[in-house]
Amino acid sequence: MASLSICNVYAGISYGIRPASSGGAAAKPRRMVAVRAEAINPDIRKTEDKVVDSVVVTELAKPLTAYCRCWRSGTFPLCDGSHVKHNKATGDNIGPLLLKNK
Amino acid sequence: MASLSICNVYAGISYGIRPASSGGAAAKPRRMVAVRAEAINPDIRKTEDKVVDSVVVTELAKPLTAYCRCWRSGTFPLCDGSHVKHNKATGDNIGPLLLKNK
Repeated sequence: MASLSICNVYAGISYGIRPASSGGAAAKPRRMVAVRAEAINPDIRKTEDKVVDSVVVTELAKPLTAYCRCWRSGTFPLCDGSHVKHNKATGDNIGPLLLKNK
Repeated sequence: MASLSICNVYAGISYGIRPASSGGAAAKPRRMVAVRAEAINPDIRKTEDKVVDSVVVTELAKPLTAYCRCWRSGTFPLCDGSHVKHNKATGDNIGPLLLKNK
């Protein structure tokens, strides 16, 4: 009963369910994911109104630095590969932003 | 009935509900958000197994470029401010990654 009421809180706004196929004969099947309008950051800096990070790109030490976009990284704002677990658990297809210093 | 079964698909894994306060007397109250283990990207490049973007930082044209971390931007991978609507609708506190070129 509790889980149903939690669902109902968020069920009012929905991005809907994506079809399994976009319809074209040669089109690659689209993943079917249901994404509700709800928070996607469970735990990162929740005392801040908005979590914004800045990178001075001239100060990047390594040729390649990956930045998190899944909000699950233990080294946020850096990527620690947590999107792999998230994608596996949810069927999602998210990944990091790679900054390349030449 | 359909919406209930959608909820049940994702209800098995949960990050739980955060307390309203972290307990310290002077601590800023934490936002209470319920975040389930479900997909956070509703629509961006769903034919790709994993959405990874690369930025060659030496090619950044502007002194400041904002990159999306909310998966709602119409100009993804760039930020278009869509996190503001997302935060308002959900109580979340996410924001972009700012790349500063000097």
